[in-house]
Amino acid sequence: MSEEPLSFEELVARKMLRINEVHNMEVGRTALLVVDMQRSFMDEDASLRVPQAWDILPSVKKMVDFCRASGIPVVFTEFVVQPELPNLRCDPFGPEHLMPEPGAPTGWGMPSGNSVIGMQGPENPDTIDELKPQPGELVVRGYTLDKFYGTPLDLALRAQDIRHLIFVGMMADLCLLATLFSAAMRDYRCVAIKDGITTIWPHILDAVFDIVERKIARVMTSDEAIAEISAQLEGLQVGV
Amino acid sequence: MSEEPLSFEELVARKMLRINEVHNMEVGRTALLVVDMQRSFMDEDASLRVPQAWDILPSVKKMVDFCRASGIPVVFTEFVVQPELPNLRCDPFGPEHLMPEPGAPTGWGMPSGNSVIGMQGPENPDTIDELKPQPGELVVRGYTLDKFYGTPLDLALRAQDIRHLIFVGMMADLCLLATLFSAAMRDYRCVAIKDGITTIWPHILDAVFDIVERKIARVMTSDEAIAEISAQLEGLQVGV
Amino acid sequence: MSEEPLSFEELVARKMLRINEVHNMEVGRTALLVVDMQRSFMDEDASLRVPQAWDILPSVKKMVDFCRASGIPVVFTEFVVQPELPNLRCDPFGPEHLMPEPGAPTGWGMPSGNSVIGMQGPENPDTIDELKPQPGELVVRGYTLDKFYGTPLDLALRAQDIRHLIFVGMMADLCLLATLFSAAMRDYRCVAIKDGITTIWPHILDAVFDIVERKIARVMTSDEAIAEISAQLEGLQVGV
Amino acid sequence: MSEEPLSFEELVARKMLRINEVHNMEVGRTALLVVDMQRSFMDEDASLRVPQAWDILPSVKKMVDFCRASGIPVVFTEFVVQPELPNLRCDPFGPEHLMPEPGAPTGWGMPSGNSVIGMQGPENPDTIDELKPQPGELVVRGYTLDKFYGTPLDLALRAQDIRHLIFVGMMADLCLLATLFSAAMRDYRCVAIKDGITTIWPHILDAVFDIVERKIARVMTSDEAIAEISAQLEGLQVGV
Repeated sequence: MSEEPLSFEELVARKMLRINEVHNMEVGRTALLVVDMQRSFMDEDASLRVPQAWDILPSVKKMVDFCRASGIPVVFTEFVVQPELPNLRCDPFGPEHLMPEPGAPTGWGMPSGNSVIGMQGPENPDTIDELKPQPGELVVRGYTLDKFYGTPLDLALRAQDIRHLIFVGMMADLCLLATLFSAAMRDYRCVAIKDGITTIWPHILDAVFDIVERKIARVMTSDEAIAEISAQLEGLQVGV
Repeated sequence: MSEEPLSFEELVARKMLRINEVHNMEVGRTALLVVDMQRSFMDEDASLRVPQAWDILPSVKKMVDFCRASGIPVVFTEFVVQPELPNLRCDPFGPEHLMPEPGAPTGWGMPSGNSVIGMQGPENPDTIDELKPQPGELVVRGYTLDKFYGTPLDLALRAQDIRHLIFVGMMADLCLLATLFSAAMRDYRCVAIKDGITTIWPHILDAVFDIVERKIARVMTSDEAIAEISAQLEGLQVGV
Repeated sequence: MSEEPLSFEELVARKMLRINEVHNMEVGRTALLVVDMQRSFMDEDASLRVPQAWDILPSVKKMVDFCRASGIPVVFTEFVVQPELPNLRCDPFGPEHLMPEPGAPTGWGMPSGNSVIGMQGPENPDTIDELKPQPGELVVRGYTLDKFYGTPLDLALRAQDIRHLIFVGMMADLCLLATLFSAAMRDYRCVAIKDGITTIWPHILDAVFDIVERKIARVMTSDEAIAEISAQLEGLQVGV
Repeated sequence: MSEEPLSFEELVARKMLRINEVHNMEVGRTALLVVDMQRSFMDEDASLRVPQAWDILPSVKKMVDFCRASGIPVVFTEFVVQPELPNLRCDPFGPEHLMPEPGAPTGWGMPSGNSVIGMQGPENPDTIDELKPQPGELVVRGYTLDKFYGTPLDLALRAQDIRHLIFVGMMADLCLLATLFSAAMRDYRCVAIKDGITTIWPHILDAVFDIVERKIARVMTSDEAIAEISAQLEGLQVGV
C-alpha cells in the first residue's frame, strides 16, 4: 500500500507490454493486408506516382512470401474509380481520377483516368506484378481511402474468423491510416509493419507511426513480426 | 491547343478553388460537430487531461454560439466507456478507462475510471459546462475514436438531410481525425476549423492539418467559416 | 376538446396519408433499384431458377424504361459469389453456389457454381439481357442478401444526393426484403412496386407486402409510381 | 458415377444436416440476444402493446436463466426514441413514438411518447422487470428496427469474440427479423428460438420462420437449444 508510485517511463513500459501481450498473433486467426500497392500509384508514368513505394517493396514482398509459405491469408486492397460512382475522392480531391479529354495533357493535378477500372497502362489500378495475387487470394477494391467502407473486407475477414491484421502498403497518411483506424475500431488487433509502410513526406510518416503506436496498433519491423509468428508455428509443430 | 502547361502552383490553386466551390456550405444542410470537449479530457484532475483544449475553447464556443444563433444544428460527441462493453480502446490502449481498485493510485497510465458512463467528478465524460448542450441538441456517445462507428450519428445527420459538417474539438490526431476520415468516406463535405481543433503535440497538429487539407476536408478559420455562412444567410434574407 | 375520438379506420387512413406525404418522390433525388434480376436466378437451366421473375419482368422493364426516359438513375444489384470469399450464404445456406466437382450432377441443392463471378452459361450472375445496364448505370455486386452490406451502394446513392428509392426485383422475402430493411434503416424513403416484386410462394409474397406496408415503405403499383413522378415532371416543366 | 440421384427430400435433409453442423453452438463464443422485451411494447396500457409477448415470456425467461447459469452472455436490445433524433420510424411509420400534446388523447395511431428515453409509465422503453438486466449485462438501445444499425452491438459482440447468436424476443416480422438479417449478413451463426419469438398475426409468424429457416438461421425450440449447449458443457467438464 505504501508502494513507490511508478515513474512515467515505467507506466509507458507497462502499457507497451500489455499491448504486445494482447496483440500476440494467433496463427490461424491472422491475415496480412497489402494496401494499395498498385500500378496507378507506382508506375513511373502514373499521375499519382509515389516513388517511395519501391523502397518498401522488399519488406512488403518478404511479408507476402512469408505469409504465403506459412498459410496466413494474404488480402490485397486496391483503390479504384468508376465514372458511374462519382464521389468527393475524385472531384474535388483527386482530379487525376477523372477521365481526360482526348488530347488534353495528363499528369499530377490533371484529369488522367488514374485508377479507373479497366484503364490500361500506367494508370491501371491492379496490384503490381511483383506482388501479383495468387489464385485463392482475395482482392478488395474500394472507392474511398478506408478499404472497409463500402467493401466486403470485413465480411471476408470475419467469415474466416480473422482477429489479427498485419498492415503493409501505402500511403501511410491516407488509405493505410484510414483503413487501420477502421480496423482498430472494429476491434481487430492490428500490427503496422514499420519498414513496410510509406508515404511521400518523412515527417508525415513519423507522425503517423507516432499516432498509431499510442492508441491504434502495435508497430513492429517485418523481421520482428516474422520471428513472432515463426516461434508460434514451431510451437505448434512440436505440440506446444 | 498550344496552351502553356500550368505550373505546379497553378494546379494546386485550381484544385483549392474547386475544393472551396464544392464545399461551399449550404445553410439548412450544414451541422456543427463538437468532438469530445468533455470533462474527462479537460478537467484539471482528469487522468487524460489535454490542457490545450482550453486554448481552443474560445473558438469552439464562438462557432457553437454562431450556429445556435443561425439555426445550424449543433451535435456533440462524447467518448464513453462501459464495463459491459470491454474493447481494445480500454485494454490495452487506454488503461485510464479501466475501473481503479479501491484505494489504488489513479492518473495517467493507471486505471482511473476515465470516461466511464455514470462516473462522477473529473473523470466524467459529459461535455463541459461551458458548452453545455441545450434542449433539442443531440449528444452522440461513442465507444471508439470514430464517432460514426457504433453510434446513431450517421442516421441523425441523414434524417435531417445534412450534407456539410463543420468540425471542432479534439484530439486532432485521434477521435477528431478518425471521425473526420469516416465523415469524408461517407461523402459529407467537411470543414476543419483550424483554430478550433487541437492536440497535445504541435508538430502532430501540423501533420494532421497537412493530411486533411490534401485529401479529406477544407481547412478554414472560425472567422472564415462564419463569414461564409453569414454571407449566405444575408443572401437568403434579401431573397437572393 | 370534446372531439369525437377517431376510429381505428380513421387512424389508419391518417397514417397512410402521412406516409404518402413524406414519401412523395422528389425528381432529382430519386433512384430506381433493380434487385437481382440476374441470369443465375432466371435462366431456364439455372439451379436457383425463380420462374415467377418472368411474370414481373414487364413491370420491371416499364419502370426501367420510364426512369431512363425521365433522367432518374437506375441502379442494378447482383448477388455474386467468389470462392475467395466463402461465407454462410454459400455453405450451408446455398449449396448451389459452391463449385461442382467435375462430372458431378448439378441443380437445386447441389454444388452448381450458381452466381460465381466469371461463371458462364445459366449460372452467370449478370443482369438479364432484357434489362441490360446501359453505359453510365451503376451495377452493385454484393455477397449477401442485403445489397447495402459490404458494397458501395450507400456511397453511390449519397454521393448523388439520392433520398428516395424505388424497389423492383426479387426475391421479395430474401434479397429484396433485406435490402429494403437496410435502406429504410438508413432513412431512405422507399417505395415497393407491388407488380414489380416477386418470390416463389404467393402467401410469402403477401406476408412481405403486409410487413413492409406497416412499418417500412410505401407500396404502390408501377402505374401509380409513374403517375406520381410524371405529374411532378410536368409541374417542373411548366415552372411550378 | 452411376449413383442414383438424390430426391428433393434427401437434398433438403442433407442441407439441414449441414446447417446444423455449421451452427453447432460453441460455448464461449455464443451469446443470447433478447430483442425488445420492453415495457412500452408489453405494458397493458402501452400504445404499442403486443399481447402475445406474454405468451413467449416463459420460454424467453427459461433461455435467459439457462444462459446466466451457464456463463453465456445475455445481451438485451431496446427500441428507443429521442426527439433530438427524428427519423422515419417515428414520422410517418410510428406516430405513437411522437410526444403527445398536453391533454390530447393517446393510444394506438396517436402521439403517445411511446419508447421515448426518459418516459415514465407504460410507454417506458426499459426491459420488463421479469427479465431485468443484471449488473454486467449489456443493454443496447437502437433507434431503428435493426439493432445493429447505429449501435455498438457488433463491436460488443466481436470484442468478446462471439460467433453464435441465439435470438428470442419480438416482433418477429420487424425488429427481430431486421436484426436477424443483419446478424446473418455479418456471418454470425444464428439460432431463432421458435417458442421464444412472436408477433401479433399467426400467419405472419409462420411466414417469418419459413423465410428464416431456408436461408438465414437455424430454427430450434428452447429445449433443443438448451440440450445442445448442455451436452457441450458436460463434455467440457469431463474433459472431452
